Amino acid sequence: MKVNEDIQRERNKCDFNVEELTNYLDGGVEVTRKRRELEIKVLSVKGLLDEVPEEYLSHKEKYENAIRKAVLFFKTIQKLLDPNHSEMERARAYFGSTIASAVFKDNSPFSLHFSMFIPTLVGQASQEQKKYWLKRAINMEIIGTYAQTELGHGTFIRGLETTATYDPKTEEFILHSPTLTSYKWWPGNLAHTANYCVVMAHLYINKKSCGIQPFIVQLRDENTHMPLPGIKLGEIGAKLGFNTVNNGFLGFDHHRIPRDRMLMKNAQVLKDGTFKRSSNSKLTYSTMVYVRVMIVKSMATQLAKAATVAIRYSAVRRQSEITPGAPEPQILDYVTQQHKLFIAVAQSHAISTTANWLWNLYEKVTKDIEAGRADNLPELHALACCLKAVSTSDAASMVERCRLACGGHGYMLSSNLHQMYGLATAACTYEGENTVLMLQTARYLVKEWEQITKGQPLSLTMSYLKDKSLLKWDNSVDGIIKGFQKVAAGKLASTVANLKKYMKSGLSPEDAWNKTSVQLVAVSEAHCRSVILSTYKAEIERTAATLSPPVKNVLNQMVQLHAIYWALEKLRDLLLYTPISEDDVRQLQRIYEDLLQKIRPNAIGLVDAFDFRDEILNSTLGAYDGRVYERLMEEALKSPLNKEPVNRSFHMYLKPFMQGNCDCGLCKKCVEIVLL
Amino acid sequence: MKVNEDIQRERNKCDFNVEELTNYLDGGVEVTRKRRELEIKVLSVKGLLDEVPEEYLSHKEKYENAIRKAVLFFKTIQKLLDPNHSEMERARAYFGSTIASAVFKDNSPFSLHFSMFIPTLVGQASQEQKKYWLKRAINMEIIGTYAQTELGHGTFIRGLETTATYDPKTEEFILHSPTLTSYKWWPGNLAHTANYCVVMAHLYINKKSCGIQPFIVQLRDENTHMPLPGIKLGEIGAKLGFNTVNNGFLGFDHHRIPRDRMLMKNAQVLKDGTFKRSSNSKLTYSTMVYVRVMIVKSMATQLAKAATVAIRYSAVRRQSEITPGAPEPQILDYVTQQHKLFIAVAQSHAISTTANWLWNLYEKVTKDIEAGRADNLPELHALACCLKAVSTSDAASMVERCRLACGGHGYMLSSNLHQMYGLATAACTYEGENTVLMLQTARYLVKEWEQITKGQPLSLTMSYLKDKSLLKWDNSVDGIIKGFQKVAAGKLASTVANLKKYMKSGLSPEDAWNKTSVQLVAVSEAHCRSVILSTYKAEIERTAATLSPPVKNVLNQMVQLHAIYWALEKLRDLLLYTPISEDDVRQLQRIYEDLLQKIRPNAIGLVDAFDFRDEILNSTLGAYDGRVYERLMEEALKSPLNKEPVNRSFHMYLKPFMQGNCDCGLCKKCVEIVLL
Repeated sequence: MKVNEDIQRERNKCDFNVEELTNYLDGGVEVTRKRRELEIKVLSVKGLLDEVPEEYLSHKEKYENAIRKAVLFFKTIQKLLDPNHSEMERARAYFGSTIASAVFKDNSPFSLHFSMFIPTLVGQASQEQKKYWLKRAINMEIIGTYAQTELGHGTFIRGLETTATYDPKTEEFILHSPTLTSYKWWPGNLAHTANYCVVMAHLYINKKSCGIQPFIVQLRDENTHMPLPGIKLGEIGAKLGFNTVNNGFLGFDHHRIPRDRMLMKNAQVLKDGTFKRSSNSKLTYSTMVYVRVMIVKSMATQLAKAATVAIRYSAVRRQSEITPGAPEPQILDYVTQQHKLFIAVAQSHAISTTANWLWNLYEKVTKDIEAGRADNLPELHALACCLKAVSTSDAASMVERCRLACGGHGYMLSSNLHQMYGLATAACTYEGENTVLMLQTARYLVKEWEQITKGQPLSLTMSYLKDKSLLKWDNSVDGIIKGFQKVAAGKLASTVANLKKYMKSGLSPEDAWNKTSVQLVAVSEAHCRSVILSTYKAEIERTAATLSPPVKNVLNQMVQLHAIYWALEKLRDLLLYTPISEDDVRQLQRIYEDLLQKIRPNAIGLVDAFDFRDEILNSTLGAYDGRVYERLMEEALKSPLNKEPVNRSFHMYLKPFMQGNCDCGLCKKCVEIVLL
Repeated sequence: MKVNEDIQRERNKCDFNVEELTNYLDGGVEVTRKRRELEIKVLSVKGLLDEVPEEYLSHKEKYENAIRKAVLFFKTIQKLLDPNHSEMERARAYFGSTIASAVFKDNSPFSLHFSMFIPTLVGQASQEQKKYWLKRAINMEIIGTYAQTELGHGTFIRGLETTATYDPKTEEFILHSPTLTSYKWWPGNLAHTANYCVVMAHLYINKKSCGIQPFIVQLRDENTHMPLPGIKLGEIGAKLGFNTVNNGFLGFDHHRIPRDRMLMKNAQVLKDGTFKRSSNSKLTYSTMVYVRVMIVKSMATQLAKAATVAIRYSAVRRQSEITPGAPEPQILDYVTQQHKLFIAVAQSHAISTTANWLWNLYEKVTKDIEAGRADNLPELHALACCLKAVSTSDAASMVERCRLACGGHGYMLSSNLHQMYGLATAACTYEGENTVLMLQTARYLVKEWEQITKGQPLSLTMSYLKDKSLLKWDNSVDGIIKGFQKVAAGKLASTVANLKKYMKSGLSPEDAWNKTSVQLVAVSEAHCRSVILSTYKAEIERTAATLSPPVKNVLNQMVQLHAIYWALEKLRDLLLYTPISEDDVRQLQRIYEDLLQKIRPNAIGLVDAFDFRDEILNSTLGAYDGRVYERLMEEALKSPLNKEPVNRSFHMYLKPFMQGNCDCGLCKKCVEIVLL
C-alpha cells in the first residue's frame, strides 16, 4: 500500500538513525529482535485479531470473545516464552508485552492471574503452598485473581471489613462479608472467569484482631464452574475501560476454608490458633512497590502510543492557513500543535527512564531485604508513591491532550486514543488513589525535614533538600534541575512552617495536616518533578554515551525540552523560590520556541522509533503509512449499521411518525397544526 | 426509601434556603415550577426510560432503541410546549432542556434537526423557502441535519471541497464530492435518520468561485428511505460519546438539485446564473455565535451535574483517617477533596452567569443587525470564541476531576460521570476547535492593542486594557479582578513586543504570529478569565440584590472562591504582571483554606439547589437519597452477564483449556510440563 506523501517526506528529512534509537529504547539490539519475533508470531495466529471491532458488540459478546482470545493468546505465547525464565519473568512477559494490546483493546480476562495472583503466591505463600498452588497456577489448571478492594473500602487497607475467623475446633477459617460495603468489588477476572482467588481479610482468632491476611479461596467448582455454597459472585457492570477484564464482586456467607489456605510465608496460624506475627510488617510493601514500578513503566508506553498517533496524524492532516494564499499546511507546522505534542514524546522518555532506574533501585532494595536489611524500603516506598501518582496523572492528561490535538477525529473510537486514555486514567485511582499516595510521600518528606533540622543524615534521593545555595539563575538544563530542587526544598520549608502555624493557632496536628494538605500534595509533586528531572538527565548521560552523535542529539533535545517545558509550566514556583528574573523567563520562552522548531523535522522519526506495529496502535489516525482518511472510511464501513441502507427502525418508528399513520393523538395527522 | 444518614445530616446543617437558590438559578419561581411540571410529565410516559442500561446493548441495538425513544419523546414534549412560542424557542426547549438527558444518555438522533437544521432555515432561508421548508421541518414531516464539516476539513470553512456548480441550462446545481476528503463527515442524524440536509458547498458559476453557500438537499426517498441516486450515505462509526446521535458521512456523485434549493436569504443565484452577493459577509457569524452561546450554557449544566454527583458521593463515602482511632471520616472532610470539588460549583455558577450575560449581548447585537448596524458583531464574535473555548475546556477538566475524586467508582459507567465528560470534551473540538478559536480572539485583541497605541476607542469589553494603574496588590475579589485585567494587558503588551521582535529578526508576519502562538493563546485566556471574573461578580451583584442574606452569602462565597482559586492557579501571571508579594500569596492561600472550611457545611445544599432529578443525573453515586452502595449493586445486577451463574464461554473455551481436553499441542496435557 502506498505511504502518504507528506509522511514519507517527513521520513526523508529525519536526520538520525531511527533503528538505532529503537534499539536504545528497547534496551538493546537483541531485545528489539526478540520483541519483533514475538509480535510476528503472535500476529500470524488466526483468530487473535477482531474482524468486527469490539465496540460494535454487546457487553456479553465482548466478554465471550475476550475469553476465546485469551485462551488462544495464552497458548500462543506460552510456546514462545523462555522456559528457563522464572515464573515472575514469564508472568511479566505474558501480561506486560505490548503485543497483548493488539489482541485485547482493554486487557485480557486472565490479566490478574498473571499480574496479581501469581506474584502474590510467589511473595506470600510458604514453600509448601507454593509447591502445590504455584504449579497449578502456572499450568493454568486454575485461574486466579486477587481480591482486596471492597465496595466501601479502597486505598485504606485497615478499613477492610471482610472477616476470616479461625475455628480451632475444625481447624478452619470462616470467611464472612458482614455488610454490603464489605463485598469485594473490582478484581479483574473475578466475575465469571476465575475459579480461585487470593482474598485479603481481617483475621480474628479468639475474637482478637490479627490484622489483614491473605487467603487462597476456591470460588467455583472446577468441573461445573458453579459458585461454591456460601459464595456470591457477579460482574460489577460496565466501565469506562477494562470491559473485557471481567471485574467482579464477591461476598461470603460464613464460608469455611481449611487452615492451610492462609498464605503463610510471613504471618502464621498454628493448629491450636496460635498466631505468629510476621517478622517485619513492612515486607508486604514490597509487592506494592513492584506493582507500582510496573505501572510507571506502562504509563510511558501509553504516552508513547498516543504521541505516535497524534504526531503522525498531524503530519498528514492539513488545515487552515499560515501564509495567505499558500496551500493548507500540515498541522504539525503550527507551533501550538508542536507545544501540545512534542512534550508527550519527551515525557514518555522521562517516565520510561525513571521507571528503569526505579526498577534497579527496587531490585537492590529487594536483595537488601533478603539479606535482612529493610532500611531503604521506606524511601523506596515514598518514591514509588509519588512516581506512580505523577506518572499516571501526567500520562492521562498528555494522552488526552494528544487526543484533543487530533480534533474531532480523535473522538472516533477508531483513533484508539480514548482507549489509551481509559487505561492511563484508570491508573490514577487504582493501586492507591493518587492524592492519598502524594500525601504518603509528603509525610516522608516532612519527616526528612525534621532530620535536617536535627542535622541527621537524609535518604539518598532527598539529600538535595539540604543544599540551600542557589544565588544565580541559569537557563541550562542543570540550572533548571537546581531550580526545581530549590523549589522542592522551599515549598517543603514553607509548608512545614504553615503546618506549625496552624498548630500554634490551636489545631490538632491531624487537623493542621488536613488543612495544609493541598500544599502538602504540591510539595510531593515538586519533589517528584525534581527527581524525574535529575534522574532523566543523569540516566540518559549514563546510558547514551556510545550512541551516534545524531541520536544523542535528539535524546538531549528531549531532555532539554522536558526541562524547559516544566520550568515554564511551574513558573509560579520558580518565581517564588528561585532568583529567576523576568528576563530569564522571556529568554526561556524564546529558547523553547526555537527548540520546538529544531525538533520539528525529526518529529516523525522520534515516534517511528517507538516502533509500535499498526496492530498494536490499532489506530486509523496513527498507522505507519499515514492513510488516515482511507482508514477512517474503511473502519466506518465495518459498523453493522452500514450493512443495510435502511435500518428497520425507519419502518417501525420513523415512517409512521413522519407520515402520520398513527393514532398517537399528537402528531400532524392527529392534531391541528399550528401554522406559521 | 430511607435517605443515607450522613447526607441527611448535611441537609440538616445547611444554613440557607435551598429552594430560594434553585429559583434564583432557574431564573424565577415560575421557571422552576414549569421545569418541574415538564419533568414530571415526561417521566410519567412509559417506555422513555431504559430498563437495561444502554451500555450493555450492541451498537445497532442502541441506535434502534434511540429512534424509538426519540419519536416517543418528541410526541410527548410537543404536546407540552407553548404553541405561542416561536419555532426557535420551541426548538430550544426541545433540544435544550435537561430532561432530555434522562431519556438519552448521549443525545437524540433528532438533535441536529432542532439545534442546527431548523435554526439554519430560520437564519438562511428566504421568506418563500421558509414558508415551505420550515413548516415541514417543524411538523416533522421531514427530518433534517446540517452538513458542513468534511472528512478532511473542519474549523477552516474556506477549505471545504464539496462543490455546487450551477448549470443555467437546466437551472440546477450539481453537487459533487471530488475527493475522499470532501465527504461530509460528522453531522448528527445524517447516517440513517435524516432524509433532508442543509449542505454547505463551494458554489461555482461559470467556473468562478462564489464562496461557501448553503443548500437544502433531499437525501432519502420519503417513502422507502433509500438514499437517492448520486448520494452515498453511512455511519462514521463508534465514538467516545454521542453514539445514539447517528453521526454520518455523505458523498455526492454529480447529484443535481433545482435552483431554488439554495438557501437565498443572504446571497442569491438568479435563473441566468447571476450571483448576488450577501450585503454583509459577517452575517453568517450570527448563527455561529448563537450556537456558541448555547454551548457555554450547556457546559455550566454538565459541570453542575458532575459537582452534584461527586459532592453527594463524598458526603456518603467514608475512607481512611484524619484523627487516629476515630471512625473513618466522610471524604468531603478532606481539604484536598474540597479543593477539587467546590470550585466545580463556583465555576458552574460563573459560566452560567457569563452565558446569560452573553445571551443578552447576543440579543442586543442581533437587534442592532436587524436595524442595519453590525459594528458590534466582531467584538461579540471574539468574545464568543474565547468563552466557548475556555468554558468547554474548564468544564471538561473539572468534570473529569470530579470523576477522579470519586476514586475507582467514578470509573463505573453507572456513575454517569464519564458521559458528562464525553459531552463536555466533545465541545472542545466541535463548533470550532478551541486553539483555533483562542487564536481568533487573540487576533482581535492584537488589533485592539494597535487601537490603544493610536489612541482610538476600544470595544466595551476590552476597554480595561487601557487602564495601566495597579500600584498596590489587594487580596479582595475586586483586587483580584483588577489583577487579572492587569495580567491580560501585560501579557498582550509583551506578546505584541515578542511578535515584533520576531518580525524584526526577519520572520514574515505570518511566521512570527505562528511562532508566538503559544503566547497568543495565553493572552486570549487571560482576557477571557478577566471577562468571566468581572462579569460573574457584577452580574451576581446586579441580580441577587433581593435575595435573603444567607443565599446572598453563599453566592458571594462562590464568587470569592472562584476569584481566589484562579488567582492561585494563575499565580505565575500575577507574579509576573502585578505587584503581588510573597506575603500576599501566603495570605491568599490561608484565606482559601478558611473559605473551603466555611463552604463545607453548605456543600450539599449548594448542589441540591441545582435541583437535578435522579433520572436526569442517572448516577449510582449521585442520587438524592445517597444510597450509593445499594445502587451500585442494583445496577451491577442489571448486567446481562449476571443473568446466568456460568457463562457459556466456560464450557466452550475455559474448561477444555484448564482441563487439557484439547489437542492444541501446547497446553498441559499436550506438552511436558516444566516443573518448578
